[in-house]
Amino acid sequence: MHLDHYRVPPDERVRLSDWATDDDGGLSKEEGEALLPGLQERLADLQERLYAEGQQALLIVLQARDAGGKDGTVKKVIGALNPNGVQVSNFKVPTEEERAHDFLWRIHRQAPRFGMVGVFNRSQYEDVLVTRVHHLIDDRTAQHRLKHICAFESLLTDSGTRIVKFYLHISPQEQKERLEARLEDPSKHWKFNPGDLEERAHWDAYTAAYEDALTTSTALAPWYVIPADRKWFRNLLVSQILVETLEEMNPQYPTPAFNAADIKIE
Amino acid sequence: MHLDHYRVPPDERVRLSDWATDDDGGLSKEEGEALLPGLQERLADLQERLYAEGQQALLIVLQARDAGGKDGTVKKVIGALNPNGVQVSNFKVPTEEERAHDFLWRIHRQAPRFGMVGVFNRSQYEDVLVTRVHHLIDDRTAQHRLKHICAFESLLTDSGTRIVKFYLHISPQEQKERLEARLEDPSKHWKFNPGDLEERAHWDAYTAAYEDALTTSTALAPWYVIPADRKWFRNLLVSQILVETLEEMNPQYPTPAFNAADIKIE
Repeated sequence: MHLDHYRVPPDERVRLSDWATDDDGGLSKEEGEALLPGLQERLADLQERLYAEGQQALLIVLQARDAGGKDGTVKKVIGALNPNGVQVSNFKVPTEEERAHDFLWRIHRQAPRFGMVGVFNRSQYEDVLVTRVHHLIDDRTAQHRLKHICAFESLLTDSGTRIVKFYLHISPQEQKERLEARLEDPSKHWKFNPGDLEERAHWDAYTAAYEDALTTSTALAPWYVIPADRKWFRNLLVSQILVETLEEMNPQYPTPAFNAADIKIE
Repeated sequence: MHLDHYRVPPDERVRLSDWATDDDGGLSKEEGEALLPGLQERLADLQERLYAEGQQALLIVLQARDAGGKDGTVKKVIGALNPNGVQVSNFKVPTEEERAHDFLWRIHRQAPRFGMVGVFNRSQYEDVLVTRVHHLIDDRTAQHRLKHICAFESLLTDSGTRIVKFYLHISPQEQKERLEARLEDPSKHWKFNPGDLEERAHWDAYTAAYEDALTTSTALAPWYVIPADRKWFRNLLVSQILVETLEEMNPQYPTPAFNAADIKIE
């Protein structure tokens, strides 16, 4: 798999209709699933180095339409990491206190400390997606917010935090099947929100808003469009991108402040 | 395994020298390891119900001497949970801002929200352990703090948060071997802190401080003394206790506010 193929180039506006939702990287499901454990092991090793080093952080942003696979990605991909070094932030409808601040205030508070992997399950991008589709903000405000997001992300990347942003890309048909599956299984009813059907009716407006959001792709805070109709391929590709990102960050065990040979334990 | 056997009875002061560090529950390592996956599956299922219900929280407190296995327990036991519903808090030496408040201020801010599993890797109990051993506080202050801790914990348990507290109990010999193993492996040097040797020299003072801390065991916030010389047994026992605790909490999927049969997805 060439990961560049899934990365949104900086300064480019992509058309999501050109991007496949059902790509399998030329692999069968069995082949893909067989590759995952090796990646998870590398990921866990790199995470331990990041934690031990304590000088850089990795921030993972997850965005998707309803039933797009955000929670599944957290469970299956992030679940392979050591929980001691992971902080998952779920951004829901803003509280009264959050609404009494600028839209990045609550986001900034959740920035991962050095050594940590932060996961934003929904993120600052909701403020240029759902709000825009429902005309709570106009296009001009949305463009301003995108600039503020870029400035905020460059503050983080300039200060030692690498950012990687995933848009989990599913087809309308796949969303339909997943929502139906939730309705059919009583133990999944809690995941079903009738309001999701209203959002589904705004499919094209969300597409346009996402296409604008994806223009914030930069070298140190790239967007990846993940073909997500196949869960196994989504997990494989996200894991692979995280491994390559952490390898580029190249965290190192710190030099000890002692000479191990000199120490005797009584 | 009778879990009661490892629970500290309320209103009792235990002597840690009466509690084994190398218990194996009558199991071989192979038998113990074979039991773990089934428990992890039950744990994941119960956690999903807790998350879906969103009405109760579980707070896990981990305390141990250096190299006692706190990080390993997080990795192996908590690692089986869905990261979306887990929040691990590592309490280190208090910051300047934290020191400018009462000792429970920073702790209370990390209380898990309903639906979540919170893990305190070190906790409020450090304020009656390391501070006491090093005579930063006197016995009277320590007793006051223990009362404040009890009141704080009862606030949480009265409000829907179940607390379970683990003291990972290792022998001096086991600690020696683990610290030596860290010195021998360069990739473990970052975990070795020469200051740990000074703490080791205060073994008996820590034992006395722990014995006082364990007096805060109550029905809804019990202490368990976990024989922790054998990592596989520690993981098994902690998992088993978490399963039983969550079963007692008995979280339920919420009743949906819709009739699934009425909904048609276009």
